[in-house]
Amino acid sequence: MGAAKFLRGLVRRIDPARLTVIVNTGDDEEFYGLHVSPDLDTVTYTLAGVVNRAQGWGLEGESFNALAALERFYGKPWFGLGDRDLATHLYRTEQIRNGSALDAITASLAGTFNVMSTILPMSNDRVRTFVKLRGRAAIPFQEYFVHGRARGAIERIELRGIDRARPAPRVLAALRSSDAVFLAPSNPFVSLGPILALKGVREALGKNRDRVAAITPIIGGRTVKGPADKMLRGLGLEVSALGVARLYRDIVGTFILDSADRTLAPKIEALGMRTITTDTIMSTAARAARLADVVLRALGL
Amino acid sequence: MGAAKFLRGLVRRIDPARLTVIVNTGDDEEFYGLHVSPDLDTVTYTLAGVVNRAQGWGLEGESFNALAALERFYGKPWFGLGDRDLATHLYRTEQIRNGSALDAITASLAGTFNVMSTILPMSNDRVRTFVKLRGRAAIPFQEYFVHGRARGAIERIELRGIDRARPAPRVLAALRSSDAVFLAPSNPFVSLGPILALKGVREALGKNRDRVAAITPIIGGRTVKGPADKMLRGLGLEVSALGVARLYRDIVGTFILDSADRTLAPKIEALGMRTITTDTIMSTAARAARLADVVLRALGL
Repeated sequence: MGAAKFLRGLVRRIDPARLTVIVNTGDDEEFYGLHVSPDLDTVTYTLAGVVNRAQGWGLEGESFNALAALERFYGKPWFGLGDRDLATHLYRTEQIRNGSALDAITASLAGTFNVMSTILPMSNDRVRTFVKLRGRAAIPFQEYFVHGRARGAIERIELRGIDRARPAPRVLAALRSSDAVFLAPSNPFVSLGPILALKGVREALGKNRDRVAAITPIIGGRTVKGPADKMLRGLGLEVSALGVARLYRDIVGTFILDSADRTLAPKIEALGMRTITTDTIMSTAARAARLADVVLRALGL
Repeated sequence: MGAAKFLRGLVRRIDPARLTVIVNTGDDEEFYGLHVSPDLDTVTYTLAGVVNRAQGWGLEGESFNALAALERFYGKPWFGLGDRDLATHLYRTEQIRNGSALDAITASLAGTFNVMSTILPMSNDRVRTFVKLRGRAAIPFQEYFVHGRARGAIERIELRGIDRARPAPRVLAALRSSDAVFLAPSNPFVSLGPILALKGVREALGKNRDRVAAITPIIGGRTVKGPADKMLRGLGLEVSALGVARLYRDIVGTFILDSADRTLAPKIEALGMRTITTDTIMSTAARAARLADVVLRALGL
């Protein structure tokens, strides 16, 4: 998750209490009757410093005994839920059943993990990302991404429920009033896409383009991790930082591309964006912090 | 749990497939949004040979990592839920939410654990046992028994929901058609009591008293384990095998008492019961099997 790496760098450079993270919930899924919010948990665990960094999700030093026992009832598991991670899902699920909204639960979870930043689910309403592969019916994102290991030619991304979903209460205000907004180097379709598709989000960003920066998730025609490159290709778009920049032209004033792609800078600038060319590969915490520095400086912070 | 020990002995002596176990659900409880059926699980795990025998509940070789993590959200846990045991509760809870009845779920769980016997919850309807202690409001059974460690003077047992609850579909038929019915050496008030209080159960047993045997849970004026003795005392009843026999006089034809209490036999027989005096302490599997032998023989099996 490029977003998690970037966040880790960012909170080395700014006061975490000043940070609001707006998180995709389109790939939330129910497993074993539990409401699992993979992106919210990864952000929470990352900012709490307890994420399993090697795998990029879940908690460090996890055991998987409950999951192994669930196999007896449900067949071979394909989604990793650690024993301690289960506590998070049990708590969230019980709170939802008791009528709490996802943003309140998310705040409570963040507080419990001593996270100083504000973590907002993009919406309290249900949005579910489905992926349509060639020759197959659309399947929920986690089935495509985790169970199917992101294989298959992508024809279409469906954001089910997006038309009825409202941004969570503080989302638009955060986008409007923040000194800067960063679009993390995340998948433009299935990570940022659902957030950007919510009513009012593109408008809020578009009115403040000069305070909005995006970091490319595509370097040298490929993603560091994840299927963003395959998705661009499947959707008939250019698989490059330029292809990504085109998706953001109405909402992003500053585009951060990798030095490897410096020849694309003029074409991106021709879209009406300022560009910053830098090393965007966050292979260490120090490199992530350095990238955060560059991005913060680019917006005059 | 005297019932579990007796069952372990019984299935050494009869074909487990011939056995139907009717189980109390009055001490079911919700923990962390999960429906937990302690008695059903103990019976299932016992018959599956996977119970933790030392503690008398839960699975052998369990870890408790999820429970430790739940403390973060819910405070110190007082009810033991192991990681692998959680799979059982997750499955049951999801099935209940999907509209399945507890007897169907119980059968499915038993099948999954390769249990050959039939395990029936006493009812698919909600019955909850509350305990009224002197000077306190009534509390749910598990709060009294596990959280409160069975302390306090008992004034009253309340079986909430019992008037509206129906026996699960196959319960009365099993009681009527079995070659023999055994009342396990369990607590007469909170383990057997809820079952016996269901509409039709005492009648079904009363019509077949000669095929019904009860094993005393009180030996020498005390229980081997659990609060049955304190409950007898608190309710103003005699704390002895005779005190227990009086509770069953309309439904039990044969009463099994411990050799230590042989002087009580004439008084129990005066209630209209046949008595068998034997060693009822099931400190080993062999002793439990020997007790099963005695009880089976007493009913001509």
